[in-house]
Amino acid sequence: MRYELYYWPSVPGRGEFVRLALEEGAADYVDVGRESGRGTGVRAIVRSLEDRKLDHPPFAPPFLKAGRLLIGQTANILLYLGPRLGLVPAAESSRLWAHQLQLTIADFVDEIHDVHHPIAASLYYAQQKKESRRRSVHLREERIPKFLGYFERIVARSGAATGYALGRRVSYVDLSLFQLMAGLRYAFPQAMAGSKYPALCALHDRVADRPRIASYLESPRRLGFNEDGLFRHYPELDGPTA
Amino acid sequence: MRYELYYWPSVPGRGEFVRLALEEGAADYVDVGRESGRGTGVRAIVRSLEDRKLDHPPFAPPFLKAGRLLIGQTANILLYLGPRLGLVPAAESSRLWAHQLQLTIADFVDEIHDVHHPIAASLYYAQQKKESRRRSVHLREERIPKFLGYFERIVARSGAATGYALGRRVSYVDLSLFQLMAGLRYAFPQAMAGSKYPALCALHDRVADRPRIASYLESPRRLGFNEDGLFRHYPELDGPTA
Repeated sequence: MRYELYYWPSVPGRGEFVRLALEEGAADYVDVGRESGRGTGVRAIVRSLEDRKLDHPPFAPPFLKAGRLLIGQTANILLYLGPRLGLVPAAESSRLWAHQLQLTIADFVDEIHDVHHPIAASLYYAQQKKESRRRSVHLREERIPKFLGYFERIVARSGAATGYALGRRVSYVDLSLFQLMAGLRYAFPQAMAGSKYPALCALHDRVADRPRIASYLESPRRLGFNEDGLFRHYPELDGPTA
Repeated sequence: MRYELYYWPSVPGRGEFVRLALEEGAADYVDVGRESGRGTGVRAIVRSLEDRKLDHPPFAPPFLKAGRLLIGQTANILLYLGPRLGLVPAAESSRLWAHQLQLTIADFVDEIHDVHHPIAASLYYAQQKKESRRRSVHLREERIPKFLGYFERIVARSGAATGYALGRRVSYVDLSLFQLMAGLRYAFPQAMAGSKYPALCALHDRVADRPRIASYLESPRRLGFNEDGLFRHYPELDGPTA
């Protein structure tokens, strides 16, 4: 099956959590937003969002076309892809647990986004800079320690040196935790310096070293972080953590 | 199976989306946070959140104990309960679609919460009132029309007079849409007055009239909205929509 990923071409954003799973799972896929030619690019994404005839219209990108299915919501796409790409254990209890962790990552990602958009997604950062600065203190001092502390404990249980979030085998949750750590380091280098999360740091490196991920990270398919995305580096929002 | 729901006892909050499914599904359940006696109440919730020995520790309430499973994240709980309570069709494509809609409801609920907490969940509303007021304009003029317009189109396709979100049969998505509409009307009576969402309004009434839901809504088990919850009525945040 050739999957079609629909996501904005200029930012890693939420699409990157899906892209990492497709890459680690060696899936055959097209990154529609980044292709050129008929039925591709930003216009193809917008056309799907405006298509009133779709059975299952997505609210926002990313969405994935898989044969006749059109699946929206990042965590839902990973719920679907996980078993098909060998990125989640077979037992229902493990799948629910992986999905639960993914939804908690999604909650954290929303909070990280909102630090530079506390008032409205429709305004520029410059228009809500004062509120952003105020919010960033709480993100650094309360939310980063709370979320990363939670994920650290979970990964550490599997053994900091070799473990993944669900045990000995990599899952899509680990790929997302890798992206989360990479994004936080990009956006908040000061807050993340001398990080107190050894298991998460080791997990980040272990994911980056996996052959398929390593080769993806060096390819032009991998998009760098930038100030249009989820994880933005604004020095005035960075600072020491608690 | 006797389910155990763990959620704060003083607000409907995110727990209510689960409660409505348990009620419509005629499930045998205990609302642990609202019971008194050994192993119940707020202390039982806090104890689970702090329990370092759990295999699948929840990040936050609500979470559901189902036999040996402990499941966190509202949408994940509904993903699990849906097929067991007859509140979602059997086909995988329908289940993914229902879950996708539920995750979109969850995103909207997060935005509705953040209108009274744009800076930090750890601060009181009074400490972020100015930012709340600024954010509320965008919620009313951009986000409510965007989200409700999306759900309206989906429900309207099934026929405004009889339809549910997924077709002719009720699903957990409809129960959540009911709660969403009820909460928005409570929080933003001005913005919701003369509402332009006839299919969603009809759906709200049809869900409220379902025998099990009607009897639940009149019971002491149903918690009213209040200013500690997700949906809060602060007149200064209400106003006309676009």
